[in-house]
Amino acid sequence: MLVVLKSDATPAQTEAVCAEIRAMGFAPHSMPGAGRTAIGITGNKGPVNALPLEALPGVERCIPVTQAYKLVLREMKPEGTVIDLKGTKVGGGATFTVIAGPCSVESVRQMDEVARFVKDQGIRVLRGGAFKPRTSPYSFQGLEQEGLKILNEIGAKHGLATITEVMDTSTVDDVAGAADILQIGARNMQNFSLLKRVGKASKPVFLKRGMSATLEELLLAAEYVLHGGNHQVMLCERGVRTFADHTRNTLDLSIVPSVQRLSHLPIFVDPSHAIGRRYFIEPMAKAALACGADGLMVEVTPDPDHALSDGAQTLDFKGFEKLMQALRHLAGALGRKLN
Amino acid sequence: MLVVLKSDATPAQTEAVCAEIRAMGFAPHSMPGAGRTAIGITGNKGPVNALPLEALPGVERCIPVTQAYKLVLREMKPEGTVIDLKGTKVGGGATFTVIAGPCSVESVRQMDEVARFVKDQGIRVLRGGAFKPRTSPYSFQGLEQEGLKILNEIGAKHGLATITEVMDTSTVDDVAGAADILQIGARNMQNFSLLKRVGKASKPVFLKRGMSATLEELLLAAEYVLHGGNHQVMLCERGVRTFADHTRNTLDLSIVPSVQRLSHLPIFVDPSHAIGRRYFIEPMAKAALACGADGLMVEVTPDPDHALSDGAQTLDFKGFEKLMQALRHLAGALGRKLN
Amino acid sequence: MLVVLKSDATPAQTEAVCAEIRAMGFAPHSMPGAGRTAIGITGNKGPVNALPLEALPGVERCIPVTQAYKLVLREMKPEGTVIDLKGTKVGGGATFTVIAGPCSVESVRQMDEVARFVKDQGIRVLRGGAFKPRTSPYSFQGLEQEGLKILNEIGAKHGLATITEVMDTSTVDDVAGAADILQIGARNMQNFSLLKRVGKASKPVFLKRGMSATLEELLLAAEYVLHGGNHQVMLCERGVRTFADHTRNTLDLSIVPSVQRLSHLPIFVDPSHAIGRRYFIEPMAKAALACGADGLMVEVTPDPDHALSDGAQTLDFKGFEKLMQALRHLAGALGRKLN
Amino acid sequence: MLVVLKSDATPAQTEAVCAEIRAMGFAPHSMPGAGRTAIGITGNKGPVNALPLEALPGVERCIPVTQAYKLVLREMKPEGTVIDLKGTKVGGGATFTVIAGPCSVESVRQMDEVARFVKDQGIRVLRGGAFKPRTSPYSFQGLEQEGLKILNEIGAKHGLATITEVMDTSTVDDVAGAADILQIGARNMQNFSLLKRVGKASKPVFLKRGMSATLEELLLAAEYVLHGGNHQVMLCERGVRTFADHTRNTLDLSIVPSVQRLSHLPIFVDPSHAIGRRYFIEPMAKAALACGADGLMVEVTPDPDHALSDGAQTLDFKGFEKLMQALRHLAGALGRKLN
Repeated sequence: MLVVLKSDATPAQTEAVCAEIRAMGFAPHSMPGAGRTAIGITGNKGPVNALPLEALPGVERCIPVTQAYKLVLREMKPEGTVIDLKGTKVGGGATFTVIAGPCSVESVRQMDEVARFVKDQGIRVLRGGAFKPRTSPYSFQGLEQEGLKILNEIGAKHGLATITEVMDTSTVDDVAGAADILQIGARNMQNFSLLKRVGKASKPVFLKRGMSATLEELLLAAEYVLHGGNHQVMLCERGVRTFADHTRNTLDLSIVPSVQRLSHLPIFVDPSHAIGRRYFIEPMAKAALACGADGLMVEVTPDPDHALSDGAQTLDFKGFEKLMQALRHLAGALGRKLN
Repeated sequence: MLVVLKSDATPAQTEAVCAEIRAMGFAPHSMPGAGRTAIGITGNKGPVNALPLEALPGVERCIPVTQAYKLVLREMKPEGTVIDLKGTKVGGGATFTVIAGPCSVESVRQMDEVARFVKDQGIRVLRGGAFKPRTSPYSFQGLEQEGLKILNEIGAKHGLATITEVMDTSTVDDVAGAADILQIGARNMQNFSLLKRVGKASKPVFLKRGMSATLEELLLAAEYVLHGGNHQVMLCERGVRTFADHTRNTLDLSIVPSVQRLSHLPIFVDPSHAIGRRYFIEPMAKAALACGADGLMVEVTPDPDHALSDGAQTLDFKGFEKLMQALRHLAGALGRKLN
Repeated sequence: MLVVLKSDATPAQTEAVCAEIRAMGFAPHSMPGAGRTAIGITGNKGPVNALPLEALPGVERCIPVTQAYKLVLREMKPEGTVIDLKGTKVGGGATFTVIAGPCSVESVRQMDEVARFVKDQGIRVLRGGAFKPRTSPYSFQGLEQEGLKILNEIGAKHGLATITEVMDTSTVDDVAGAADILQIGARNMQNFSLLKRVGKASKPVFLKRGMSATLEELLLAAEYVLHGGNHQVMLCERGVRTFADHTRNTLDLSIVPSVQRLSHLPIFVDPSHAIGRRYFIEPMAKAALACGADGLMVEVTPDPDHALSDGAQTLDFKGFEKLMQALRHLAGALGRKLN
Repeated sequence: MLVVLKSDATPAQTEAVCAEIRAMGFAPHSMPGAGRTAIGITGNKGPVNALPLEALPGVERCIPVTQAYKLVLREMKPEGTVIDLKGTKVGGGATFTVIAGPCSVESVRQMDEVARFVKDQGIRVLRGGAFKPRTSPYSFQGLEQEGLKILNEIGAKHGLATITEVMDTSTVDDVAGAADILQIGARNMQNFSLLKRVGKASKPVFLKRGMSATLEELLLAAEYVLHGGNHQVMLCERGVRTFADHTRNTLDLSIVPSVQRLSHLPIFVDPSHAIGRRYFIEPMAKAALACGADGLMVEVTPDPDHALSDGAQTLDFKGFEKLMQALRHLAGALGRKLN
C-alpha cells in the first residue's frame, strides 16, 4: 500500500499518518517526491485496509500494490495449463482447438447431422446449448434435460467431447453427468454461487468473460473455481460492451496476450457472439489464431436462417468448411496444430 | 419489420424480397425513398425472423419495430405501480423512500445499533447483506444463514421492513422467509434461473441494473419476474461501466425519467455502489431526488472505516443524519413525502 | 514513482533496480510487502521516466504518483474561481447561472425574439451557434461571420452577455471580437492548437468535456488555457459515450462534485446535448442544480420542430418557462441565487 | 423514415400523422403490425425532419432509413481505392503496407538512423511527428517546423515516402509541402475545419479513428475530405475508449471487415497507440494482417526507453526486425505482398 499525501500536507499531518500505520502494526516509509510526499507501508501479510488512512487530514489517496488473485498467476505455474479432453490436448501453445456446433440443441437429427459434419472437418469438441440464457422471457429457452440427453448420446456416438452451458447450481450435477465441459456464460461470470459450485465439480470449466468484466475480474472469477479445487479452467473472450455499434459487441482480442502474460490458463475466443454477423466470423477467427489464442468457439448449423436461436451469427456447413480451410492453412504457417 | 434494400438493388431483387415475405405468410409494402427502397411487412402476429430476408441479394439490413417487453410497459398500466411495504407506500410519485443499512450484516449488536438509529431518522426499510457477492474469493462472503436470522430479528424488533440480497435459486425460500424484499444484485440481473424463481415468490423484488445493461435489458429482466407472476418489482440504478475513472462506476441518472416514460415500475438509485466514495453520496442522492427517482438505497454503519465490506462508500451516522436533513428539506420543496 | 516487483523477483534483480534508480540520480526505498516487494523513488523534481525500469527483469509495473496538472488545482487556489460576465458573477457556489439560446443563429428575427424572451425569464447570458460542428458535411454548417454579427448586435441590444463556439485558430479573433465567451466544443476539447490560442485571448473560455474524456484529460485541457495566461475558464459536462442507448449520450453528473473537489474552476452542465430528447431536460437540469453545478447551458428556440439543427433536444418557450420556474423554486430551497 | 406508433394509438391519431406527412409533401404508408402500427414515408428526396412527427400524440419514435454518407460507400465504387505513394500501391487487397518510424522527430541523426534501418527492412513509408498532440501542456510538443524540415530531408535522402500529423488549418500548407501524407490524429477526427481544409489539399490523408467514434462518424469524417475534392483517404483504427484497463485503449479490429464491407477506402491499424505496451504489438499486428487490414502503422526508434514521447509503446530495432519477419511470413501464407 502506498499513501499519497496532498501537496499541502503539513509535517504534523504526515506524522499522524505514520503514527496510524504504526498503530496498525506496520512500518511507514516516508518518501518525499516532486510536489508531494508518499508513504509506503511494509510489514503487512495481506491487503491493508485503506479506509482509516484515507480518512486522515492531508491524505490524497491510497494505492494498493498487491493483486488479489494467486492460483491463476503464471508466476505460480510458469508452464501453461494443458487440459486433456478425451485425448485432445487444449492449451500450452502448441495446438489451436476449435469447438463447434449449433447454438441450441434442437433435435437428435440436427445434432447428429452437425456432429458427423464437424467430425469430418477435424473437430474434437462439440457444443450445443440445452439451457439457454435469453434476454427475453418470450424467446426459446432450450430443450433443457432433453437437450442434455441428446448432446450426451450424440457425443458418445461420434466419439466427440461435449460442452454445454450450466446456468445454475441446481443443474450442475445434471450437466456434469451429460457433458465433458461445463460452460459458464458471460452473464454468469460473476454468479459466485455457481463459480463455487463448479469449483467442486470434476469436469473442466469453460468460463466466458462477462460483457463488462475487466481482466482482473475475469481472473478472479477463475480464481473462485481454482480455489474450490477445480484447476481445469479455460477462459473465453466473447466481446465486451462499448459505444461501438457496428458489431453487437466489441471483440477485445488484446485480452489474449494479456491473459497469457499474467496467467497459465488457456484463453479461447468466441467470435460468433461478439460480432453477431456471420460474415465477420472468418476474419476475426483468423485474427484470434494470429494473436495467439489457444482456441476458438464457433457456431455452425445446417440451416442457420431457421435456427431457434442466434441464427444471424451462425455459419452454415459451406461457410464452416471455408473457415476451417483458412484456419488450417494459417495454423500451419504459424507452427500450430489445429485440433 | 422494415427491410432496407441496397441503393443498387435491382427490381428483380426487390420482387424476390416481396415474394419471400409473401411466402412467410405476410404482406410486403414497397416504399421507394431517396436513394434506396424499404419494404414494410404487415400481417405478422409477433416478431418476424429477419434471417431469410437478410440473406437475399440486394438487402442491406432489417429493422425490427416491435418491442419485446409487454407487462412492464406503462402503456399497459398508465398509473405507476405502488408497492406496500408494511404500510409504507413505495412508487407512484408522491413519496421518496430511503432504504438504509450496512453493506453486510456483521453482528446482532451492529444491526441493532443501526436499526435504532435509522428508525430515529425516519427510515422504514432496513438493508443488510447476508449473502455477499464478492469479486475475490478471499474477501468476506457474508454471515449467510446467520445473517438472515439477525436481519429478521432486528427488523421485527424495530418494526422495520427488511431487504437483503438473494444470490441463487437454492436460497430463495430462506431469504423470502427472513426478509420483506428480495434483492437481485447487478451481477445477477441476467441470471435468468434466479429471475424465474423469484417470479414465483410472494415477496417484492428489488432488481438492480447490471453493470452494462441497456434499458431494454433491464426492462426485460423485470419482465421475467412479472411473467412469472410476481408484479411487485422495483428497479434500481447503481452505476454502469464506462471509461470514466473518477468514480468507481458512472451513475446514469438519466435512466430515471427514461424508465418512468416507458414503464410503470418504481425506479430507485443506489449512489453508494456507483460512486464508491462517501463524499459524493450526498450530492448524487440529492440529484436522484431532484430528477424524480422513487427512492434511494444508501449504506450506513457506525464505523465504516472498519466495516467488513465496502467501507469506502458507506456513511457514518453523522454523515447519514446530514444527508437525511438535506433530503427532507429538498423533498419538501419538490412536494414529495420522504419515507 | 513506485516500482512493483514480481513475486518471484530475486535479490539480485531487486538490487539491479535500485542501482538503476541511483544511476538516474534518485534514491530507491525498498519496501518488502506481502507476497512482493515495491521500491519507492525519491529525489526527483518532476515525473520519473518509467521505461528503463519497466524493462528490467523482475519488474511487474511502475505506478506514477505525481499529477500532471497544477494551475487548475484547488490546492493551489482554495476559493473557487468567480468570473464576471457583464456584472453577473459565475462560479464560487452562491449562484446558479443559466445560459440559454438557440442551437444555431438563424436570423436577426429569431435571435431578437429569443433574446427578449430569455431576458424576461431572468437570463443574463445568450448562446447561439455561428460556426457549427456537424457530423455530416451535408448538414447546415451555421451562418458563420453573419451569425457572429447577429449575435453581437442582439446581445448589445438587450444587454446580454453572449457565448458562441470557436472552431479553429483562424477565427478566434473574430469570435472574441463578437462574443463575450469563447466556447470550445466537445469535439475540440483536445484540439491543442486551439487551446493554446484561446489561452492568449482576453475573453473567458467555456470548455466542454470531450465525449470520452477522463476527468484528468478535462483538467489538463483547461490547464493548457490557464498555462497560456487565460485564467477565466468554465468547464461543462455534456454527456459521454457509453454502451447505453436510451439517451444520445450518458450525462455523467458525478463529475460535478469530482471537479469541485479537485479544481477551483466552475463546472456547468449541458443536458440538451447529452440527452438528445427535450422531455428529459427538466429532470436532468434539476439534478444538475441539486448536485451542486455552477450553472446550466440549455437550448431554447420559438419553433424547435423546424430549427436548422438539434431541434429534438431544444425547448420551446413554454417548456423553457416551466423549466425556469422549477429551477428558481429549487434554487431557493437550496440557498442558491439563479442568474 | 418509418414512424412507429404507440400500441394504444387511436385511429384519429394515426390519421393525424398521415395528414402531417401529406402536408410535408410526402406519401404515408400505413402498416398495421403485431401490437402496433408503423407508417412508412415515401416521396422524399433526402432526410425527412422527424421532429414535427415525433411531437404528435400517439407517436412512439421515428426510425431513419437513409445513411448520411455517399462518396465513401463501396456501393458507389465497388473496387477498393488504391493510393500510389511514390510507386507503392496502398489499398485494394493485394498488399499490406507497413508505415514505420519514431513517435517524434527528435534529431537529424535519429531520423537518419531510423530511415536507414526501416528501409533495410523493406519499409517504403516513414513516419515521424513534428507537431505532437500531448494531453499535458508540460509534455514535449514536438520540433514543429524544424521537425518537418528534418523529415523532408531524410525522406528525400533515402527515397522514402513520409507521413506526419497536421494539427490545425494554419499549418496544412507547411505539412503538405514537407510530407507525402497528411495524418489527422484521433483527437482531431471531428475537427471539421481541418477536415474541410485537407479536403482541398493535394496530398493523401491518413485519418485516425477518434477515441469514441462510431463507424458512421469515421466514414462521415472521411466524407468531409472526399466532399472537399480529395479522394485519397486512408482510415486507421488506433483503439477506442472502453472500461477495459488491461490495455491503454481497446483495439477494435472488427472495424477492419466492417469498413471493407461498407466503404472502398483502405483501412490501417495502429497497435502502438491502442495497446500502449510494446510486448503486445507483435500479436496484435499479426491479428490485424490476418483479419484483412490494408496496412499497419507502428512506432520504432533506436532507444525507446529514452524517447521524448511514447517510449512505452515503441519497438526497438531488434523488436521491429522480429515483427517484420513474422509479418512477412504470415503475409506470404495469406497471399498478401508486404510493402
